[in-house]
Amino acid sequence: MSERFAVVLAAGQGTRMKSSLYKVLHPVCGKPMVQHVVDQLNVLQLSQLITVVGFGAEKVKDELGDATEFVIQKEQLGTGHAVMQAEEMLGNREGTTLVVCGDTPLLTSETLEAFVSHHENEQAKVSVLTAGADDPTGYGRVVRNESGEVEKIVEHKDASEAERAIKEINTGTYCFDNQALFQALKNVSNDNVQGEYYLPDVIEIVKSRGEKITAYQTSDFAETMGVNDRVALFRAEKHMRKRINEKHMRNGVTVINPEHTYIGPEVTIEQDVVIEPGCTIEGKTVIKTDAFIGANTEIKNCEIGSGTAIKQSVAHDSKIGQHVKIGPFAHIRPDSDIKNDVKIGNFVEVKKAVFDEGSKASHLSYIGDAEVGKEVNIGCGTITVNYDGENKHKTVIEDGAFIGCNSNLVAPVTIEKGAYVAAGSTITKDVPEEALSIARSRQTNKEGYVERLKNIRKK
Amino acid sequence: MSERFAVVLAAGQGTRMKSSLYKVLHPVCGKPMVQHVVDQLNVLQLSQLITVVGFGAEKVKDELGDATEFVIQKEQLGTGHAVMQAEEMLGNREGTTLVVCGDTPLLTSETLEAFVSHHENEQAKVSVLTAGADDPTGYGRVVRNESGEVEKIVEHKDASEAERAIKEINTGTYCFDNQALFQALKNVSNDNVQGEYYLPDVIEIVKSRGEKITAYQTSDFAETMGVNDRVALFRAEKHMRKRINEKHMRNGVTVINPEHTYIGPEVTIEQDVVIEPGCTIEGKTVIKTDAFIGANTEIKNCEIGSGTAIKQSVAHDSKIGQHVKIGPFAHIRPDSDIKNDVKIGNFVEVKKAVFDEGSKASHLSYIGDAEVGKEVNIGCGTITVNYDGENKHKTVIEDGAFIGCNSNLVAPVTIEKGAYVAAGSTITKDVPEEALSIARSRQTNKEGYVERLKNIRKK
Amino acid sequence: MSERFAVVLAAGQGTRMKSSLYKVLHPVCGKPMVQHVVDQLNVLQLSQLITVVGFGAEKVKDELGDATEFVIQKEQLGTGHAVMQAEEMLGNREGTTLVVCGDTPLLTSETLEAFVSHHENEQAKVSVLTAGADDPTGYGRVVRNESGEVEKIVEHKDASEAERAIKEINTGTYCFDNQALFQALKNVSNDNVQGEYYLPDVIEIVKSRGEKITAYQTSDFAETMGVNDRVALFRAEKHMRKRINEKHMRNGVTVINPEHTYIGPEVTIEQDVVIEPGCTIEGKTVIKTDAFIGANTEIKNCEIGSGTAIKQSVAHDSKIGQHVKIGPFAHIRPDSDIKNDVKIGNFVEVKKAVFDEGSKASHLSYIGDAEVGKEVNIGCGTITVNYDGENKHKTVIEDGAFIGCNSNLVAPVTIEKGAYVAAGSTITKDVPEEALSIARSRQTNKEGYVERLKNIRKK
Repeated sequence: MSERFAVVLAAGQGTRMKSSLYKVLHPVCGKPMVQHVVDQLNVLQLSQLITVVGFGAEKVKDELGDATEFVIQKEQLGTGHAVMQAEEMLGNREGTTLVVCGDTPLLTSETLEAFVSHHENEQAKVSVLTAGADDPTGYGRVVRNESGEVEKIVEHKDASEAERAIKEINTGTYCFDNQALFQALKNVSNDNVQGEYYLPDVIEIVKSRGEKITAYQTSDFAETMGVNDRVALFRAEKHMRKRINEKHMRNGVTVINPEHTYIGPEVTIEQDVVIEPGCTIEGKTVIKTDAFIGANTEIKNCEIGSGTAIKQSVAHDSKIGQHVKIGPFAHIRPDSDIKNDVKIGNFVEVKKAVFDEGSKASHLSYIGDAEVGKEVNIGCGTITVNYDGENKHKTVIEDGAFIGCNSNLVAPVTIEKGAYVAAGSTITKDVPEEALSIARSRQTNKEGYVERLKNIRKK
Repeated sequence: MSERFAVVLAAGQGTRMKSSLYKVLHPVCGKPMVQHVVDQLNVLQLSQLITVVGFGAEKVKDELGDATEFVIQKEQLGTGHAVMQAEEMLGNREGTTLVVCGDTPLLTSETLEAFVSHHENEQAKVSVLTAGADDPTGYGRVVRNESGEVEKIVEHKDASEAERAIKEINTGTYCFDNQALFQALKNVSNDNVQGEYYLPDVIEIVKSRGEKITAYQTSDFAETMGVNDRVALFRAEKHMRKRINEKHMRNGVTVINPEHTYIGPEVTIEQDVVIEPGCTIEGKTVIKTDAFIGANTEIKNCEIGSGTAIKQSVAHDSKIGQHVKIGPFAHIRPDSDIKNDVKIGNFVEVKKAVFDEGSKASHLSYIGDAEVGKEVNIGCGTITVNYDGENKHKTVIEDGAFIGCNSNLVAPVTIEKGAYVAAGSTITKDVPEEALSIARSRQTNKEGYVERLKNIRKK
Repeated sequence: MSERFAVVLAAGQGTRMKSSLYKVLHPVCGKPMVQHVVDQLNVLQLSQLITVVGFGAEKVKDELGDATEFVIQKEQLGTGHAVMQAEEMLGNREGTTLVVCGDTPLLTSETLEAFVSHHENEQAKVSVLTAGADDPTGYGRVVRNESGEVEKIVEHKDASEAERAIKEINTGTYCFDNQALFQALKNVSNDNVQGEYYLPDVIEIVKSRGEKITAYQTSDFAETMGVNDRVALFRAEKHMRKRINEKHMRNGVTVINPEHTYIGPEVTIEQDVVIEPGCTIEGKTVIKTDAFIGANTEIKNCEIGSGTAIKQSVAHDSKIGQHVKIGPFAHIRPDSDIKNDVKIGNFVEVKKAVFDEGSKASHLSYIGDAEVGKEVNIGCGTITVNYDGENKHKTVIEDGAFIGCNSNLVAPVTIEKGAYVAAGSTITKDVPEEALSIARSRQTNKEGYVERLKNIRKK
């Protein structure tokens, strides 16, 4: 196999996106378009991968990081000009150069591999990735000769009626013999209305030298789709969503409504997990077998153990064990570590807290900056008072402690093993093992009060 | 240009809706069907717009208000009879009268304008708005002669096989020469099974006088759709939703899943706003650039500043500034005014309250009937006790105050600048500037309590 | 009418489901696939209904209970072998035997009835339920002779080009003359690659005896769909969801987005109920006229009165009266009984509690194991302290009581009629009628505290 290179065109402004964000950075299923392209290309084992970015596109570089090398196209003078920027890095190499637009996020490594292999097997100088379109209006048509080679590519506006009847369209993805590419690019002119150097002009130039131009038609038109505005962005997202969700479904995950379930490309889900509609599951989340993700839950970067149920809740950057019950309406904030058999109930917020096995915070509580031991019962309305207006402090609740309802645990404070805190107490000092701590007033009943109140109010 | 008039037919019972609500009042994307029709007609600059309503349809009148004049059709004797009710108001005028059904909410002013202009340019006596239907079954077919004029309209059941093959259908929207209309209506008979006066009979009568009947075919069949039951109501809503959402997307708004995002027709959204799935955004809401509306959020009549993020929350009739963070699971009730850089966190309810810049209520609080100054920190579990069983009172928390967790602020009460309220306090009197206010009991630890409790319980 | 029997094939492993759950137990709209099949069959008034289950399929038996009899197929030796297991129960009977796969959840009793009637009227020995497929690839084709009888069924892989052009496919549902079925089954061989006994082989055997084989083509291809993996499971769910939702819509329920509304097959909904998107309504729920179910609400086994509004909330196994307002973000847990005109507001959890008419718990409260009388006002942050670490106790709040904010009611405890509890009180003893109960400390304001605190912190 000869060497392979790829050039990703990512310098376009994307004015139809109407955005202050670079077009190729707009995410599809949570990942920037160009990142999808680069990730798929990196599966191909290329000798070199070069992304052409616009002048000052630091954000694109930051996003892609080490996954690619970069060259800068200082002025936007067309796709041919963009590829020319890679000449210094690639110009003297021998092999195949794949050129892909950074706004085609649905292209898969399988299709790209098949395309490059076709190009290599055919020993063509240029190959065009094509697709069959039900409605080819607006696309460039691929005109083949009797032997199936590419005769030319005609833009829609220049096409004859016979050419317009052709349903095979140019997707804008090309393979080139690297030497032929850079040689031909020197002859591409900008003598056109836009004053731009167009990459497809290379085809005519190479053709005129009597070289072989082939086309590889992929079966999935949608996969080749480019994104130029936010309606197209949605269409790409919809395809990607379907692809991701069906992969999980075929692996044994029940997704009740995959048309309304949003799973990121890096998420791992085991067999017999059930995901109800309206969920967003993002980042490096891992969900183990038999877990249940109830409707409208949002999970980001979490590890979720087997048999755990999370309903109508939000959980970010946390570890959640097995057979845990969370929600509905719970909020697990980052750096929480919730071990097996814990229950976090409704209207409970957990932040940067460890809950050891079998503990419960069933209702209306805030447990932040805390270490909760095993089999602890945290009563409704319990608050870890972790902030004094200047610093955050830590609360420790040891194994088997029982925290009465509506308690304040003013950190730093430790409730030792098996201790009781009476309901309605504000605890400012440590509570020893198995002690009862109480900090509240005695009850007084004032008889006849309501009668007196009514009289007062009458006046 | 001659004068233009319009008559909206809104008196139908709509029995297939199975509703106690007038058919035309059923909302599509939050706005009554007939209101959509009237609003689009009002773009046309008509000399007079008359809506025909059923006897006692006060609700229709209330809904439409000054946007139209009304005539009453006391008995439901058919569409021809309905239009006849407008004779007293329109009968002696010269010009063009557009007749539209109140149950066709998708018709746009652009289409209506093109239709009326066609009618005027053609100098026809009657024009029919038509559409091409993939499956015309059930619709009246439009039979044209060689010159393209309308020969007749045949109902599906009366159509010959050749006529049934016609795909151009009658949408039920008409333009008339006003004089010709009311003259012909006098000759429409109710000699049919239903005993009703049918408006389309006007066509035959005018035709028989040798007058010109034309048809204007609109390209979008869906737009002409009438709503007769709730399945059709959904279909109309789906089309309208797509139309509204794609408008925003083309303007530079990212709508992750427009198939499950519900934006009202009067909402304004600026560029680079991101809207996650499951959101409902209604009323006169304005959302400024770079705001983020997280999944499953409901917003009604709010102004939302740039860079603000609202997640999984509900906000109604309030003003929310820039770079505010709300949610998840927050509830902003009417008449709240939340200024820049405020944070309203999880399980917080705000009602009729001002939050000045930089203040925070991060968790589990109720702040109602309150004025909160700048840079105030409201601890978790804080409650403004605004109701004494008879009246509501106001809480004032001045700049820089720090309210400890689980505090009750019993209104009317003022916490002055920079004051501290200790956690767990019930505050009934004003707290002076920079004072600490405390209202809680000392903590007592009763050692060995749990041992004793176990012994008691054993007995 | 001769006797009718049915055999449901429910023993298949369903390896492509990749599940530890039996294939036929995977739910569609909340009900196991095979339960849908059995329920539809039971409408037909059969003399006997037999379900063939795999060895050890106790869960299938448990699920279906008395709705069917069972026979066990110990080894998975094919569909013919499966039906043979019913021979002992059915072999000597006369009549018609319908054989249906347990993984075809969309088949309706109407279609099955039409199919069986066709079979009986035609006096056929075997009848095949067929459907017209737009793309029949992969399906067995039904080859008919000139008189319309079935000549043979050809598997896709064995079909000639002419046969492949046939769009009428075998759905795998059959009617047999019972005697002919069991006679023929004895002659079915397992001389094939899989070594299995195939039920369709019966057709050829019966045909070879010169008997009549007919086919009944149903108009709805989707209805005959079998579920073999979770992608198909979703497709079945989508069809079922549409069927259920459109039924309600035609009955006068407004479902804003039926593509994202999840209503179980046993739910009853009256006219003029409005259901916003993202709702799940399950079990034996009944919703009365004019109720409003706001977005993202989950309801299971509840009775909901007319005019009641529930928004963005969760309610299970409870009774909710008329003109009740619930939510947003409320949680009604099982065994609650909420009477007319009650308000349960945001971040309120109700569990096993009665709320009598006109009472309110508007914010941030937990009311569990409680009896709340009429016109009670429960202040924000109120908690019924029902658990002492060992047992649950009951709270009684009598008519007209007023519970101040952030109160703890330590059960067992009674707040008598018209009594007041002061905000911030922890109530451990009963409060007499019209008394004020208070259990909190006096407020002390320490002037100059903040200044001193700053000095301390500086050090």
